Amino acid sequence: MSQYNITNTNKVKRIPERGKYDHESVHAIIDEAKICHVSFVLEGKPMIIPTIMGREENHIYFHGATTSRLLKSLQQGIDVSVCITHLDGLVLARSIFHHSMNYRSAVLFGKAVLVPEEEKIHALKVISDHVIKGRWEEVRQPNEKELKATTVLKMEIDLASAKIRTGPPGDDKEDIDAKVWAGVIPFSLKSQKPICDEFTGECANFPESVSKLLQ
Amino acid sequence: MSQYNITNTNKVKRIPERGKYDHESVHAIIDEAKICHVSFVLEGKPMIIPTIMGREENHIYFHGATTSRLLKSLQQGIDVSVCITHLDGLVLARSIFHHSMNYRSAVLFGKAVLVPEEEKIHALKVISDHVIKGRWEEVRQPNEKELKATTVLKMEIDLASAKIRTGPPGDDKEDIDAKVWAGVIPFSLKSQKPICDEFTGECANFPESVSKLLQ
Repeated sequence: MSQYNITNTNKVKRIPERGKYDHESVHAIIDEAKICHVSFVLEGKPMIIPTIMGREENHIYFHGATTSRLLKSLQQGIDVSVCITHLDGLVLARSIFHHSMNYRSAVLFGKAVLVPEEEKIHALKVISDHVIKGRWEEVRQPNEKELKATTVLKMEIDLASAKIRTGPPGDDKEDIDAKVWAGVIPFSLKSQKPICDEFTGECANFPESVSKLLQ
Repeated sequence: MSQYNITNTNKVKRIPERGKYDHESVHAIIDEAKICHVSFVLEGKPMIIPTIMGREENHIYFHGATTSRLLKSLQQGIDVSVCITHLDGLVLARSIFHHSMNYRSAVLFGKAVLVPEEEKIHALKVISDHVIKGRWEEVRQPNEKELKATTVLKMEIDLASAKIRTGPPGDDKEDIDAKVWAGVIPFSLKSQKPICDEFTGECANFPESVSKLLQ
């Protein structure tokens, strides 16, 4: 099983037994994400932006308007860290101290670089497939003007770690007998019934990309 | 309606009509969040960490282990930016270019400082109430040892902005007649049926804090 190097940058220091460094665990967390948060340094200050992305092998593609501050800064090849977090549940213990969350998070470190023109369409398809598999083939693909207005960045994942908590609360022995409900309230990001726009003829006739997403 | 100053740091530059700067809009996005992402600069590099927080008035409390890297770095009073994002839906257009998301995000800027001992319990209650209102009163509160092991930070929100997208796709006129399903797939973070742990006597007998959360 291939894994990321463990350095001072990506090492999970708090509760290290929750840390994972293998590609498979990290990539699985990325692949399930609809959004991520990107952190970078702009004039010495921390900046953070939510965005969508697409993973292919060991790199991530981001896109945005050619004019955006994020993209303008990042395309110079600066360091970024990216975080993806799935909240799986609230963990309720018998003491406040042992309250926790069940989650799967991944933090990625690398440099974002500008994607050359000839790789742009491929990269946009990777992002599109990441968010809604198969949608790319159902709709009008980008024209020259749209491609020009879009900047795409690529980040090779140099270092990464995943951190995962599962299971019930870990109460102290002396609290176990307290007459308090303790356990987990599971949470998940769920899709609801799609709402078609006013120009869609057959509203309930979902294309394959939408049907698959709802399964 | 009070609002944050608009500077080069927090100004929404991309699609500025989606930007909001009033306290009410920003605080509403914070208050609904179970988690946030905190970005800070460590030895010149961007770091990002997911965590829980609690808002009170115009400040945010974070907490963590006294030994954690985030807390150790932040308590020196360094700049942080915090992002909260609620994904409300995927927006499917007739062209790839106009695909989007419905979301509500807030980015906050400020300095994190260490909370003095006498404010710690209050701050922890704010965080607890933020995540599960009323839970604090149901369980054993922190003892001296637990308080010692916990570091709490406070960040006054100096600058902030919210960015919100709602509604159907914004297709180009020339694409409207395309025979393509277009619309929104709503998404939301939903709780499922709570799972009590093995030491809880009456599993289905939820305390008030849990019942309220499920409503």
